[in-house]
Amino acid sequence: MAQSFHICPNTKHFRWCRDIPPVLTVPSGAEISFDLHDGGNNQIRLDNTKEALSTFDFTQADPGHGPVFIEGAEPGDVLRVDFLELETADYGWTAIFRGFGVLADEFDDKPPALRMWDLRGAAERRYIVFPTTSEHLRGKIRVPFSPFLGTIGVAPAAGGEHPMVPPMPHTGGNIDTRHITCGSSLYLPIQVAGALLSVGDGHAAQGDGEVCGTAVETPMRCRLRVTVEKGESTKSWCADGPAIMTAPRETRPELDVVAKGGREFMALGVDADLREATKKAVRGVLAWLVTEKGMERSEAYMLASVAGSLKLTEVVDMPNYVVGFGIPLGIFVE
Amino acid sequence: MAQSFHICPNTKHFRWCRDIPPVLTVPSGAEISFDLHDGGNNQIRLDNTKEALSTFDFTQADPGHGPVFIEGAEPGDVLRVDFLELETADYGWTAIFRGFGVLADEFDDKPPALRMWDLRGAAERRYIVFPTTSEHLRGKIRVPFSPFLGTIGVAPAAGGEHPMVPPMPHTGGNIDTRHITCGSSLYLPIQVAGALLSVGDGHAAQGDGEVCGTAVETPMRCRLRVTVEKGESTKSWCADGPAIMTAPRETRPELDVVAKGGREFMALGVDADLREATKKAVRGVLAWLVTEKGMERSEAYMLASVAGSLKLTEVVDMPNYVVGFGIPLGIFVE
Repeated sequence: MAQSFHICPNTKHFRWCRDIPPVLTVPSGAEISFDLHDGGNNQIRLDNTKEALSTFDFTQADPGHGPVFIEGAEPGDVLRVDFLELETADYGWTAIFRGFGVLADEFDDKPPALRMWDLRGAAERRYIVFPTTSEHLRGKIRVPFSPFLGTIGVAPAAGGEHPMVPPMPHTGGNIDTRHITCGSSLYLPIQVAGALLSVGDGHAAQGDGEVCGTAVETPMRCRLRVTVEKGESTKSWCADGPAIMTAPRETRPELDVVAKGGREFMALGVDADLREATKKAVRGVLAWLVTEKGMERSEAYMLASVAGSLKLTEVVDMPNYVVGFGIPLGIFVE
Repeated sequence: MAQSFHICPNTKHFRWCRDIPPVLTVPSGAEISFDLHDGGNNQIRLDNTKEALSTFDFTQADPGHGPVFIEGAEPGDVLRVDFLELETADYGWTAIFRGFGVLADEFDDKPPALRMWDLRGAAERRYIVFPTTSEHLRGKIRVPFSPFLGTIGVAPAAGGEHPMVPPMPHTGGNIDTRHITCGSSLYLPIQVAGALLSVGDGHAAQGDGEVCGTAVETPMRCRLRVTVEKGESTKSWCADGPAIMTAPRETRPELDVVAKGGREFMALGVDADLREATKKAVRGVLAWLVTEKGMERSEAYMLASVAGSLKLTEVVDMPNYVVGFGIPLGIFVE
């Protein structure tokens, strides 16, 4: 039987650094449970939403809980992380912060926006209701409940301190990639002895892209299994970065929320610059949500971030790329 | 009942230009059938595969069949195209051409590669078998049969001649976007009187990205309905480019080919440059196909192009992006 270990919420760091002393040492194959503050270090809570945005301290963003030293892990090995349990708090939040998000230029003159989600019962229901302030949309938009960790990484090889918000090319970190749900496995290339794994930034739901800059942010309890992989084949497919074996379909009943009918509205952005193509596609979906669903544009942006997904539909017909941003029609209750 | 019209395969052009005289004039709401040469202008056929690659003339790439003048279409309107029937030839091809494809640098010293697909019975079976030259993989890889048109666009506003291969920011063209299957609707912003619609480049299967530069290329017969939309809301969501309402799930039984188990192997590319992030993710999947499935790297690249899909999983944690490239495990016969 696997040995079990626990990390409490106060063992955390605000910089990636290979010199941070481990808070725990475990053997390969161990199960570790973490009690995690959210990606805002719990600065935004149910009881302080009015003042929290104006006093929000970005130096506390995306804390890493750890690091954990895994015995036998050597540079060049790969750390496999299996996601066994991901339990959210009973609330979550989505915000638009100034200077953050793919359309930052278009929202920087607007007041910061914040919506609080009710996550009670979500694990059974498998959907959460979009917390709109528009009377005519209240209760009418359901988003699949798909918890995952936004931040998961191992210590970088390079010395010095590295910021928490940008993901790291080889060692993960704040990858904000929604596909590491329960039942999936993440493979991280190890760069220092012991790997030095840290995690954080629980998300209850997010689309590919996290376009407004935040997901459904929530404190989380999670249980993971860590295994050191030394095989040459695993190393070969992690040579350029992390990899994922996604979860079986039967572990993801929340996908049925959006599967209904299976249609998406998808806007295309065509441009020689991939970021510009992305912005055009996101703008198209926001325009559709505003005109067809009567949404206020800030709320459309937040909904797009938690339920819409970016695809690179064409990357070879140079000099122009095509990016598609799709929003499933199934999230709208009829 | 809608009026029906037909376009034969020799009415085509090799430049986008607003001054090309229409080959047909139809009312809004008309149904048009096209008999289309493939994206290589039928230079590669079942009877000439040996010599076709060395003599391939790129000035004939992606011919547009048309243009069709739609009565009542004015600049500022939107052309809605409904895809009613898409019938492939009984063969298709996938190639790696020098200088083309997202990893062109890594394949330019290799001989060009070509694989011919057998598409007979595919419309009923809903999958096609990857034409590998490896004995141990023969018959073991099934790709969903999902026909669509790679090229569909209206004439650009700018005068002069524009090349066919790059998609155009506002008017579509060679968008190579796999989501416009039967049952979907494409919305194209109109820039000149009559819209001047042209189509071509039939594909029997492709993933998001078309990473090796080609899909399953095939001559095609198709039937479309064209409708001029003059509403302000439609114009608002097409202001930055084309848009798609994707097909209902029940019209896409081919998705069950890959749905089995629902797992994907997904490699992540993390980089401050989106194109570099894309290349890293594609490399990761190729390495996995080579080491785990015993594929030759050129064949892995072609399979990735027709069955793997690129996602922008994170675009806000600056300065680094995360691109995911996923290949469904369900394509491998057990």
